[in-house]
Amino acid sequence: MTERILIKHLAAREDGPVTVSGWVDTVRDQKKVQFIVLHDESGALQLVNPAVREVDPDDAASAGRHEITETISGLSQGSFITVTGELKHDERVKLGGIEVKIGTLEVVSHAVPESPIADDSSIDKRLDWRFIDLRRPEQNLIFRVQTTFEHALRTYWIEHDFIEIHTPKLMASASESRAELFEVGYFDDTAYLAQSPQFFKQMAQPAGFGKVFEIGPAFRADPSFTSRHATEFTSIDTEVSWISSHEDVMRLHEELMVAGIRAIKEKHGEEIEQRFGVTIEVPTTPFPRIPLAEAKQIVAERGYVVPRHDDDMDPEGERQIAAYVKEKYGHDFVFLTDYASSIRPFYHMRNADDQGITNSYDLVYHGVEISTGAQREHRIDVLTTQAKEKGLDPEELGFYLDFFRYGVPPHGGFGMGLARVLMLMLGLNSIREVTYLFRGPNRLLP
Amino acid sequence: MTERILIKHLAAREDGPVTVSGWVDTVRDQKKVQFIVLHDESGALQLVNPAVREVDPDDAASAGRHEITETISGLSQGSFITVTGELKHDERVKLGGIEVKIGTLEVVSHAVPESPIADDSSIDKRLDWRFIDLRRPEQNLIFRVQTTFEHALRTYWIEHDFIEIHTPKLMASASESRAELFEVGYFDDTAYLAQSPQFFKQMAQPAGFGKVFEIGPAFRADPSFTSRHATEFTSIDTEVSWISSHEDVMRLHEELMVAGIRAIKEKHGEEIEQRFGVTIEVPTTPFPRIPLAEAKQIVAERGYVVPRHDDDMDPEGERQIAAYVKEKYGHDFVFLTDYASSIRPFYHMRNADDQGITNSYDLVYHGVEISTGAQREHRIDVLTTQAKEKGLDPEELGFYLDFFRYGVPPHGGFGMGLARVLMLMLGLNSIREVTYLFRGPNRLLP
Repeated sequence: MTERILIKHLAAREDGPVTVSGWVDTVRDQKKVQFIVLHDESGALQLVNPAVREVDPDDAASAGRHEITETISGLSQGSFITVTGELKHDERVKLGGIEVKIGTLEVVSHAVPESPIADDSSIDKRLDWRFIDLRRPEQNLIFRVQTTFEHALRTYWIEHDFIEIHTPKLMASASESRAELFEVGYFDDTAYLAQSPQFFKQMAQPAGFGKVFEIGPAFRADPSFTSRHATEFTSIDTEVSWISSHEDVMRLHEELMVAGIRAIKEKHGEEIEQRFGVTIEVPTTPFPRIPLAEAKQIVAERGYVVPRHDDDMDPEGERQIAAYVKEKYGHDFVFLTDYASSIRPFYHMRNADDQGITNSYDLVYHGVEISTGAQREHRIDVLTTQAKEKGLDPEELGFYLDFFRYGVPPHGGFGMGLARVLMLMLGLNSIREVTYLFRGPNRLLP
Repeated sequence: MTERILIKHLAAREDGPVTVSGWVDTVRDQKKVQFIVLHDESGALQLVNPAVREVDPDDAASAGRHEITETISGLSQGSFITVTGELKHDERVKLGGIEVKIGTLEVVSHAVPESPIADDSSIDKRLDWRFIDLRRPEQNLIFRVQTTFEHALRTYWIEHDFIEIHTPKLMASASESRAELFEVGYFDDTAYLAQSPQFFKQMAQPAGFGKVFEIGPAFRADPSFTSRHATEFTSIDTEVSWISSHEDVMRLHEELMVAGIRAIKEKHGEEIEQRFGVTIEVPTTPFPRIPLAEAKQIVAERGYVVPRHDDDMDPEGERQIAAYVKEKYGHDFVFLTDYASSIRPFYHMRNADDQGITNSYDLVYHGVEISTGAQREHRIDVLTTQAKEKGLDPEELGFYLDFFRYGVPPHGGFGMGLARVLMLMLGLNSIREVTYLFRGPNRLLP
């Protein structure tokens, strides 16, 4: 390995020799002195070089110094370099109060001089050149936050004896809606890309796994261009046996959110404040819970009538109820519960006392739906009836319905979009910003 | 939640009232006493019930006892039940020295009486009914081992400041070989399923991420039916900047393997010994390294001439060199290094002193290749030349080649098949056994 010191560790070091590596952000090439702002994955640093514009035949060292000066004058933005030099703490240096005086400089990789994007380029243009866009410190932070969030969730699951599963993304039939399905040529047959791990994480319950989780890709052939939709996204899924109702799922869900957000606050809270102007707050539990019918009433009383013919909420309604919850309870999350059976999939369990509603919920965060959870119907006769009611063919659901014929404990779980959580947490306006490489109806590149 | 105690925790408890839940494995319905072997995700337990065959009108409790007796007589294998009763330690009980005398019994979910598979069913038949197959304690253990392995790797990565990425599985072009590519109808266009995250994990290097990892699905339209191949598999990938050669990648690789295997030994070592008859050994580092040319000579001296016209090894050769390493160094792993350029992809860096070989390796574990790693070529001119040499069209590689035009540090990494590692570690003979739901040329169900 190149023996380098991460820039974030320099401030805590004493003055003296150091080696740093990274890419060139800017070069200020003054007559007597040259400055480079160097970035690595941990931060930015000022490098300084006293310019030697001519070789002095009486000074043996001047040839080398002259060569370094010429190299710096020709450095293009984005070039990767390794520099060994003297670290010096100096309060006058705006960039972190330190600088490194260049001793040796090696250009590891030259960059084409003109960057195809600038800080004010459109999001679409930036996505074309995503690998350059990701060099911005904000972008780097997003993916470190993502890493911390996922690890906190997984650590919670591991400590609570969950089993990690990898469900197949190639399926013989649809798992959710036939409408938004990608077809794959599969030898002489046709396969479909999984829209969610729904059927297969449920399979773990009759398999006796008890509690499972998966973080993996899901695919929807969704032609919409909103800031919240993608054709491929990372889905956070969990499913547990022996629940009494969706209340148990919500309790698990809020504990996971707290674990994830607490870890982010501890590790990145200050930097998030500084880069995004957002204060990360660890939410209190329990999160507020409001039955959907009540939520629609509350929203109506606020003067907004949801313009839908079915019993569902709409995005503006979700914003309104979130605003109400924020005012009343000071909370960023709200569980909307008891969705109508008419707008929920056949596998959601219905309320024992009211077949018109389901044991299900949506989790709304900063006014946007990030997750759907539910108790599942595990009684094969009821499940089959509900499938038929929804116009599904039990024949086609054969392998799924079999899961319920050989014994299965009551169970439930949720699926949550990773990108939505990150977008809302950091106050950004599109999942494109927080997705490593976004995929939409007209974006497959890079 | 159903308030239950996991069976594995019963042995450490004092005698007294307990509630357990799980599925029925066997029922022994004797005239005077009934025995049930109950399984949950943590273990097996004997339940006992003194049979009450007739209701005694003088004994108020006998109606209830009679009903429980009748219920047990009618219990089918696989039914999920919840039992509250009295725990009693008794050395004479073969199953763990404990039993629970049934107080109340609730059938949570009935099972169809006849199980479609038995312990001696063929693997193909078992895969048809995978959710029942997974109830076997060996199968449950496999996925708990998988969970521990992945968490140990991720913890290592997190502690070493790696960033987790989720690369897209939908691509506009091939990332490896055009031959084994699945095509996806993508609106009016065609997409392809990623054969590996190769291009996109490399993208993280010019993006300045430094060190990245991903565990996710990869797809190969591979028509072969061997015990080591699948059309969809879980790939463990990592990629790091600022390496000096593939030696740095191998060092990272062996540290990860040690972290993963150590965690498994600690958490599951005894149970693996008991269920699979395999002793988990934490390997010593460094793992042996043998250049491929030398390995072929060693194998030839052992009397096996690799029957290939190219410079590659074959599976029998890998077994032979592994046997040699085991005899000579007592090691289960061996890095075969310096593969010929002719048999490696265009993006592998070639040896500075010998263009005929690459800075690459395969990792062989118990005689089977589980991984390929390499330093990548990051110099755009060399990379373009090597792509052309391999008959690739630089035009089609456009977006990938762009990654190298705007500055990029030297880097390398590896990809490793999760299922192969688990299969070899546990001494199993097919990746089908260790894959949650196997996908092959003629298997898309369940």
